[in-house]
Amino acid sequence: MKPNKSSIRMTQYRIKPQSGTALTLQKGQILRIIDVEGEQVSDLACFVLGNINEYFSSGRTIDYNEKIYLSTGDILYSNQSNPMLSVLNDKVGKHDLLFAPCSREMLALSYGITEAHPNCLDNLTNHLGQYGIKASQITNVFNIFMNATLSAHGNITIAPPLSKAGDYIDLRAHMDLIVGITACSAKKCNNYHCTSIDVEIFEAV
Amino acid sequence: MKPNKSSIRMTQYRIKPQSGTALTLQKGQILRIIDVEGEQVSDLACFVLGNINEYFSSGRTIDYNEKIYLSTGDILYSNQSNPMLSVLNDKVGKHDLLFAPCSREMLALSYGITEAHPNCLDNLTNHLGQYGIKASQITNVFNIFMNATLSAHGNITIAPPLSKAGDYIDLRAHMDLIVGITACSAKKCNNYHCTSIDVEIFEAV
Repeated sequence: MKPNKSSIRMTQYRIKPQSGTALTLQKGQILRIIDVEGEQVSDLACFVLGNINEYFSSGRTIDYNEKIYLSTGDILYSNQSNPMLSVLNDKVGKHDLLFAPCSREMLALSYGITEAHPNCLDNLTNHLGQYGIKASQITNVFNIFMNATLSAHGNITIAPPLSKAGDYIDLRAHMDLIVGITACSAKKCNNYHCTSIDVEIFEAV
Repeated sequence: MKPNKSSIRMTQYRIKPQSGTALTLQKGQILRIIDVEGEQVSDLACFVLGNINEYFSSGRTIDYNEKIYLSTGDILYSNQSNPMLSVLNDKVGKHDLLFAPCSREMLALSYGITEAHPNCLDNLTNHLGQYGIKASQITNVFNIFMNATLSAHGNITIAPPLSKAGDYIDLRAHMDLIVGITACSAKKCNNYHCTSIDVEIFEAV
């Protein structure tokens, strides 16, 4: 299914389990992130093409949407308070804005993994590096399909994603963007089974 | 009252309403942030002295503490997953980890303020600039005394801070740090009355 009747699919790409990619998105284009097998998180980092000092801000996004769970109609904002991406369609309705991407240090602290292991921060850094973006510039990300629930006292429980095979979210670009995307490498948030993420780009015509 | 019997107060400083400061903190020193009149938020940004690419990360902090409301015994982590500050004492028990500091753009979007107006991002940038830190390097901060409550559906309500006159939080440094601190300039989160913040540094002896 296309984002709407007058959209054309331009690009299709599979992100293999525990890996990532980076791409540019033109203003007006629609990015579809698809959970191929279900219960798989995809981290999304986002920078303005031509000005990497302007980037996705979870803090601004939470502030202006007045909520932590984004869905259809909501907007992802930059640190300079500009709209970067709108949620055009969302088949899942539960994503995370609180966490940073998993990293070597996070896997060591949270899971006791001390040997080399794929992780979202390395996967984002490796692919965003071609645009001059360094690991230290990757802060909190949009953790698509991640199911982190808060209790009334603010305590967090991570549960399997609500996404089933083929579920997706569509994001429309408000400006020209550099986007890093992963198929998350951690255990718990992917229900202990890391699978693929498909990416499609549609041109609104 | 001193943080404990064997602490000596080294420095005392008043941050006037709608302004800020920056200081360095040595490993082991204790930073006290005091709400002078009550119901006043103080934003805290934090960088490693000698490596400003390592900085306070709300995402890592939420992850490792498994909660969004920090209090006594909890730890603030860096983007490289190192402990930066521990909460040693906390007279309030409600602070915020979700928001970015208020900014010119935020005041325009949220309050319709288009003329020049003090804001935490400018106040942090002006004072942290002496350490080579730029506005784009200031992401989500630790919003001390800020009272943002989440509903079960993740919607946010901002209420007056729970802090009363003289209430404080003590933070112990795990490493040598650069710290930016404000007396917040926004309206709603300070119950529409911006007042002073006192800062004290104690040396554990």
